[in-house]
Amino acid sequence: MSRMVKGALHPFEHLPVVGRLVRRAAKPPGLPPGTLIHTGHRRVEVPRIEVIRYSGEVIRESGPEDLSASRLHEIFSEEATEVDGVLWVNVDGLHDVNLLRDIGEAVGAHALAMEDVASVGQRPKVEDYGDHLFIVLHMLRVEGSPFRIVDEQVSFFVAPGLLVSFQEQPGDVFGPVRERLRTAKGRIRGQGADYLAYALIDSVVDHYFHVMERLGERIESLEADVAERPSPEIMHRLHHLKRELLLVRRSVWPLREMMGALLRVEGPLMSDTTKVYLRDIHDHSYQVIDTVELLRDVANGVRDLYLSQVSNRTNEVMKVLTVMASIFIPLTFIAGVYGMNFEYMPELAYPWAYPAVLGLMLLVALGLLALFRWRNWI
Amino acid sequence: MSRMVKGALHPFEHLPVVGRLVRRAAKPPGLPPGTLIHTGHRRVEVPRIEVIRYSGEVIRESGPEDLSASRLHEIFSEEATEVDGVLWVNVDGLHDVNLLRDIGEAVGAHALAMEDVASVGQRPKVEDYGDHLFIVLHMLRVEGSPFRIVDEQVSFFVAPGLLVSFQEQPGDVFGPVRERLRTAKGRIRGQGADYLAYALIDSVVDHYFHVMERLGERIESLEADVAERPSPEIMHRLHHLKRELLLVRRSVWPLREMMGALLRVEGPLMSDTTKVYLRDIHDHSYQVIDTVELLRDVANGVRDLYLSQVSNRTNEVMKVLTVMASIFIPLTFIAGVYGMNFEYMPELAYPWAYPAVLGLMLLVALGLLALFRWRNWI
Amino acid sequence: MSRMVKGALHPFEHLPVVGRLVRRAAKPPGLPPGTLIHTGHRRVEVPRIEVIRYSGEVIRESGPEDLSASRLHEIFSEEATEVDGVLWVNVDGLHDVNLLRDIGEAVGAHALAMEDVASVGQRPKVEDYGDHLFIVLHMLRVEGSPFRIVDEQVSFFVAPGLLVSFQEQPGDVFGPVRERLRTAKGRIRGQGADYLAYALIDSVVDHYFHVMERLGERIESLEADVAERPSPEIMHRLHHLKRELLLVRRSVWPLREMMGALLRVEGPLMSDTTKVYLRDIHDHSYQVIDTVELLRDVANGVRDLYLSQVSNRTNEVMKVLTVMASIFIPLTFIAGVYGMNFEYMPELAYPWAYPAVLGLMLLVALGLLALFRWRNWI
Amino acid sequence: MSRMVKGALHPFEHLPVVGRLVRRAAKPPGLPPGTLIHTGHRRVEVPRIEVIRYSGEVIRESGPEDLSASRLHEIFSEEATEVDGVLWVNVDGLHDVNLLRDIGEAVGAHALAMEDVASVGQRPKVEDYGDHLFIVLHMLRVEGSPFRIVDEQVSFFVAPGLLVSFQEQPGDVFGPVRERLRTAKGRIRGQGADYLAYALIDSVVDHYFHVMERLGERIESLEADVAERPSPEIMHRLHHLKRELLLVRRSVWPLREMMGALLRVEGPLMSDTTKVYLRDIHDHSYQVIDTVELLRDVANGVRDLYLSQVSNRTNEVMKVLTVMASIFIPLTFIAGVYGMNFEYMPELAYPWAYPAVLGLMLLVALGLLALFRWRNWI
Amino acid sequence: MSRMVKGALHPFEHLPVVGRLVRRAAKPPGLPPGTLIHTGHRRVEVPRIEVIRYSGEVIRESGPEDLSASRLHEIFSEEATEVDGVLWVNVDGLHDVNLLRDIGEAVGAHALAMEDVASVGQRPKVEDYGDHLFIVLHMLRVEGSPFRIVDEQVSFFVAPGLLVSFQEQPGDVFGPVRERLRTAKGRIRGQGADYLAYALIDSVVDHYFHVMERLGERIESLEADVAERPSPEIMHRLHHLKRELLLVRRSVWPLREMMGALLRVEGPLMSDTTKVYLRDIHDHSYQVIDTVELLRDVANGVRDLYLSQVSNRTNEVMKVLTVMASIFIPLTFIAGVYGMNFEYMPELAYPWAYPAVLGLMLLVALGLLALFRWRNWI
Repeated sequence: MSRMVKGALHPFEHLPVVGRLVRRAAKPPGLPPGTLIHTGHRRVEVPRIEVIRYSGEVIRESGPEDLSASRLHEIFSEEATEVDGVLWVNVDGLHDVNLLRDIGEAVGAHALAMEDVASVGQRPKVEDYGDHLFIVLHMLRVEGSPFRIVDEQVSFFVAPGLLVSFQEQPGDVFGPVRERLRTAKGRIRGQGADYLAYALIDSVVDHYFHVMERLGERIESLEADVAERPSPEIMHRLHHLKRELLLVRRSVWPLREMMGALLRVEGPLMSDTTKVYLRDIHDHSYQVIDTVELLRDVANGVRDLYLSQVSNRTNEVMKVLTVMASIFIPLTFIAGVYGMNFEYMPELAYPWAYPAVLGLMLLVALGLLALFRWRNWI
Repeated sequence: MSRMVKGALHPFEHLPVVGRLVRRAAKPPGLPPGTLIHTGHRRVEVPRIEVIRYSGEVIRESGPEDLSASRLHEIFSEEATEVDGVLWVNVDGLHDVNLLRDIGEAVGAHALAMEDVASVGQRPKVEDYGDHLFIVLHMLRVEGSPFRIVDEQVSFFVAPGLLVSFQEQPGDVFGPVRERLRTAKGRIRGQGADYLAYALIDSVVDHYFHVMERLGERIESLEADVAERPSPEIMHRLHHLKRELLLVRRSVWPLREMMGALLRVEGPLMSDTTKVYLRDIHDHSYQVIDTVELLRDVANGVRDLYLSQVSNRTNEVMKVLTVMASIFIPLTFIAGVYGMNFEYMPELAYPWAYPAVLGLMLLVALGLLALFRWRNWI
Repeated sequence: MSRMVKGALHPFEHLPVVGRLVRRAAKPPGLPPGTLIHTGHRRVEVPRIEVIRYSGEVIRESGPEDLSASRLHEIFSEEATEVDGVLWVNVDGLHDVNLLRDIGEAVGAHALAMEDVASVGQRPKVEDYGDHLFIVLHMLRVEGSPFRIVDEQVSFFVAPGLLVSFQEQPGDVFGPVRERLRTAKGRIRGQGADYLAYALIDSVVDHYFHVMERLGERIESLEADVAERPSPEIMHRLHHLKRELLLVRRSVWPLREMMGALLRVEGPLMSDTTKVYLRDIHDHSYQVIDTVELLRDVANGVRDLYLSQVSNRTNEVMKVLTVMASIFIPLTFIAGVYGMNFEYMPELAYPWAYPAVLGLMLLVALGLLALFRWRNWI
Repeated sequence: MSRMVKGALHPFEHLPVVGRLVRRAAKPPGLPPGTLIHTGHRRVEVPRIEVIRYSGEVIRESGPEDLSASRLHEIFSEEATEVDGVLWVNVDGLHDVNLLRDIGEAVGAHALAMEDVASVGQRPKVEDYGDHLFIVLHMLRVEGSPFRIVDEQVSFFVAPGLLVSFQEQPGDVFGPVRERLRTAKGRIRGQGADYLAYALIDSVVDHYFHVMERLGERIESLEADVAERPSPEIMHRLHHLKRELLLVRRSVWPLREMMGALLRVEGPLMSDTTKVYLRDIHDHSYQVIDTVELLRDVANGVRDLYLSQVSNRTNEVMKVLTVMASIFIPLTFIAGVYGMNFEYMPELAYPWAYPAVLGLMLLVALGLLALFRWRNWI
Repeated sequence: MSRMVKGALHPFEHLPVVGRLVRRAAKPPGLPPGTLIHTGHRRVEVPRIEVIRYSGEVIRESGPEDLSASRLHEIFSEEATEVDGVLWVNVDGLHDVNLLRDIGEAVGAHALAMEDVASVGQRPKVEDYGDHLFIVLHMLRVEGSPFRIVDEQVSFFVAPGLLVSFQEQPGDVFGPVRERLRTAKGRIRGQGADYLAYALIDSVVDHYFHVMERLGERIESLEADVAERPSPEIMHRLHHLKRELLLVRRSVWPLREMMGALLRVEGPLMSDTTKVYLRDIHDHSYQVIDTVELLRDVANGVRDLYLSQVSNRTNEVMKVLTVMASIFIPLTFIAGVYGMNFEYMPELAYPWAYPAVLGLMLLVALGLLALFRWRNWI
């Protein structure tokens, strides 16, 4: 069997950090809080920044460009002086801790918040620092074939009129939101930064459903394979799937709590209008968690089904062996008896002895067959 | 064995969307909230609308007809001007999103509520929008033979004097409620829209008990089969059943919470009189959940029972093989010894040698039989 | 094996409704609330009513008689006019819904409460209707040999000075309470209807301990059998027991919650003196639940023990087969070699060849025996 | 195998009531509350009473003596008249219900409390009767070799200046407390009855750790045995241990809740100074529960380990059989072919045929050996 | 097989006390509270004390030295008189209970707190004594190769301007904190004793992530081994790992609760500034617990995978045996028939009989091979 699953060997060896069970520790122990250390993979060469400023009437975009730190200050100082509208700054790439520190200082983010931006592998959470909110969550994406789930940490700094988003790499799920901003579709242009935060979180959570769907299909294909062509490799695929589910669960479980915290934020940082929409995501977070648990239960059912099949198959094999051996071993014994070379074996001389012995053998064989059929073995 | 369960192959392949583990995502990620997208199966050609207006004294019914959007506005504008009584509009078929939007606008429903109407696969919930309630739950029905559980999303928009219900297809569990309205049986005609909502939810929940009953019978038949004629196919049926239970559980678990939320609704949308009745459904929701969990526990017991039987049967088969082989292999060996062709084998010449060897064989066989009987193997 | 457990076949086929996993639905879906439908077994020919009126000084009993509806009104109207003491009306048999409706109307019970009286299979609960309490719980009794647990729904309507109890059939656990009323033993005669309710609930809960005891003995006997004479039939008995435990659990779990609700009842319906006693039942309900869970855990331990024994036994059987086959198959082969009929087999002619081959066979056998002993197989 | 575990048979047959899964019901159902019925084993011939009166300066002890009921009244009436200090009356033996009733009346205990004293098998709890506290808990002791855990119910009646303790038999864990009272070590002599209660409960809980230690050692010895000399008897010992853990858990789980209730007692019955110490026991109760759960988890790990070993061993045995049989059965067949007695078998006459066949046999054997080695079976 | 795992035998025999399932009881039962008993291993010869006094401007260090009790009083009396800054006294080694008592008296610690310092194996907790906080937690470190997790209890006494830390042995995770104090890096020098406590706890918790990482790697290596070279020893390693996880869990679970309690401390003992940082550790404690649970789930997945492989392998072995035996046993029987010595066996004389029989044998063999291939066995 070991040969058969050769294709499934080392399934976890070349996993990037996102598939590891334990992500890098938050920081080397004992450093002062607020020390910025990037704990993830460097997934992009140079961080790129993209600036969108919009209000009900106008929208102005720049970037993505590779900005110098000096230009950065400009953005926040200049642009922030404009009275109206919302400034959305999106940062792709987190390994340049100096850049992160500069941004953090420019917008007045708490040192602990900036530390969490850089050290990926945070638990989804909302921190209310009074004059700004800090939100961490995980973007899940399906990649490759056979697909793997890629987990990317996204953080939002939300203040009145300002939202800064941090991602590990370019390429995100926010395209439709940008499109809505540009085309002024829906109510997004007329709302504040809290509504933009809602729209971005909503995009992330909507993607979870896509991931669930793919996982669901994979379980259903496993179910079909167990029924149709069970093979030892199924347990490997199942283990892989359950592991993936556990990793998704880790990103998804705290979501419910996080959305609850966001709904409890008081004051102007989160308007009541936006909260109506957040309640919708809150419901979705329950739905996602229900689905993860459902998939885990079904996966365990598939395991039970497969194991019972292995037992049944062993049982079948045993029956064949037992039937064959039980019928022929006695017959061989009878043949052996009359193959003995004793001088005085009177039966050997009778002409009817040979057919009689053959008949006896037939009787024995039929008797045993009848016994096995009666026991429902054949 | 693979041959034996051929009938059970691919049990999940042709399932309609309702039996899938993960239903379609709520909407393509990133769309503005309130975008109406029908995510279910189109189960009916043209949406059909049915209008019932009643008060203590009179009842007026129209439809089901296929209404144009213009006629629709008429209904709500005209009829809503009447002061007394309750207007119940029932919509079958959700794929015509323009129609849904029109209805939503006519009755003043929140955009998020209308989005949830169209995207089936919602978690049961109650949303209190101040001037109206929005309620989603799942109607479970048993269909076909061997039966399958069909899950249909039902939504209610409840405002004073107005209830709009949305279903995926014609054919529902509300027949008896219509009958009570027509015959003025019970107190329903004299009550408001909240009582009508109660009556409809009660119908849906009463149906859950019917589904439970059928599932319970199926488990009992599995129990009897495990005891009487265990076959590998049982694990397939059991897996299928547990899967069905998980899908039912997904629809049923949030019910308790939802009924609790409905009981906490303050103000005129839900009168205290109606709440006494809702408390009754609240109790039933606990009962349904208890039953689902009970059935899952029993299903696991059946699995244990079946697996222990497979082990026992393997054990039985092994014993037969061992007894047969252990008795005849030594005898065959003895026969083999005296079948050797050495020139100097003095025993071969003794006239009593043949019967003596036969006697020895008998002794060995009896001894081994005694040993196995002592070990309780035969 | 299938033959062996023949006695255990179809263990659930002839179960009365009380042993079914899912009891009848509360009512055909969609009926108006308060519709009285008896959902249980008709366990008695004609309902029988028993009336006890007592105060500190006197006690007056009548019945059990088969009362007409007209006589019934008399009881409640006449007797209720007396100022002092408590009136206890006990009804055995629930299938005459007209009678139940009459009683309900006579005492002013809520329609939903009367519906719950008739539709057995309710979850234990307390409903506080302001001027009266409605209490449902389950009476468990052990019956027959091998015993089965019988579950009977009991409901109490409690108002100041009045208690009406409803049972499915005559024969209950209230005998000692009647005796205490008659002999004025204890404080019961001097107390109100709430204390009588306490005394009756206490009787029911005390019986649970009896049921637990019997179930505990059964598990202990299973434990002894697994250790002493394990047989496939044990898993059937264990499954049956676990199923019984699940049914008991369904009746018992909500008890804790129900007693908590009873302790929270404010006002004259439940006096503080009585609550001290109710606290005692509350403790007992925890104890019963602890015991059910303990028994389930032990039952799972017995299952593990049995399954490990089956595995061990298979292992033992395999060893015997392997030892026998491994020793004799090589020997038979050697004998076979010298049974070949080649013309030029020089060994055959040596006079010492026969004993030498016998010696070789002995050596091979001893060597293999030594190997198996070293492996601790024999 | 059944022979091997003969020493482990009937492990539960001769258990005293303390080891039974379900202890005697609280009382025969339906008796008036407060009826004293001793439900335990009579573990002592005559109840013995011990009286200790102490204050900051003096201590006076009498007993243990077998007191008459009349002398009893004397104790409480006389001694209770003294103003200062604390009176501790310890009762060993609970079967003399008249004595218990007398004591209860003398100290003014609630009838329900006295009932709980006599009916052992209570859940640990605290009852606050306003003027006195009633506390029940379980004393666990390790006895015999191989040790068994003995469970004894201890109750405390605590009023200002008075503590009455009830035990099932002489011999307790209170020796060190008596010593501290006599030697005035620590602060105990200067404190009230509540502190004495604390000291006694603390003694009981400290003993739990001793029991845990012994259970922990037993699991560790099982772990070593599974690794070193696995035998079927291990599952019996494991089952026994898990059962013991379940019984301990039943006594220990409610402790946390009980200590919480004690910390919430208001007024002079439990002083704030004492509560600081009670908080310490509260922590310990969490620690004990953590440990019980940890031990259960480890015990399940040992079960998994053992079962995997049985599977592995079966696999090993199978391999040996398969290798032996697969090699020699074909060889025996070849020998059989040349043992046939056909007249025209030309090979038989060739002088090189015999060595050629022997060589062929060797080749077949080596080929099969190579195959099995390649499969890693040998 | 028993031979194969010899290297894994007795894995728990030589464990130091830290790896034991149950640590020593808190103290011999019944001692007065506050009795100092060291319950751990004596891990250091002589306790060593290290004193650091710092304020925003200056830092003064002395030690680690082996201090006499008299010198000790000096430290606290002298140093404590200085108005500014924070005094941090670190004690390594807990077996000298007199020293502990002296320190406790010098700083005014509660007797129960000092008892907990000495009796290692406490549950992590925070005690608020009004004028000082007492904090216990566990420092986890990875040691050796194959590594083992070492658990050391650390206690903090925190009062305004004073922190005393107690460890079981020299060598800790506080090096970076000392460095930050010396180099005045970060804000630590300007903050009070509560911030120092935060920094130390943060160091301890950061180390947990390191431990998790190592455990995660070990599980991943087990996963790879199960896929690549499954061997019975894997279950031993897995059991060992799960045991280690359980021990870590015991230290880590109460952390969440403990951090919550620390966040609820009111007054000057824990400033609001410090609480912002504590909230960060609170999040980390959730993350650690999530990870422990995730690792346990994955470990169970690995167990399932391994067990399914053993079953599959047994199945494979059985198939080989069955194929070999089923093919050759009938052939051997045929050969046996024509090896019989009857005088009248006409076939023996036909010249074409021998090749015909050989052909028959070939047909039988091919037929059986075809059957097995059809069944997918070969």
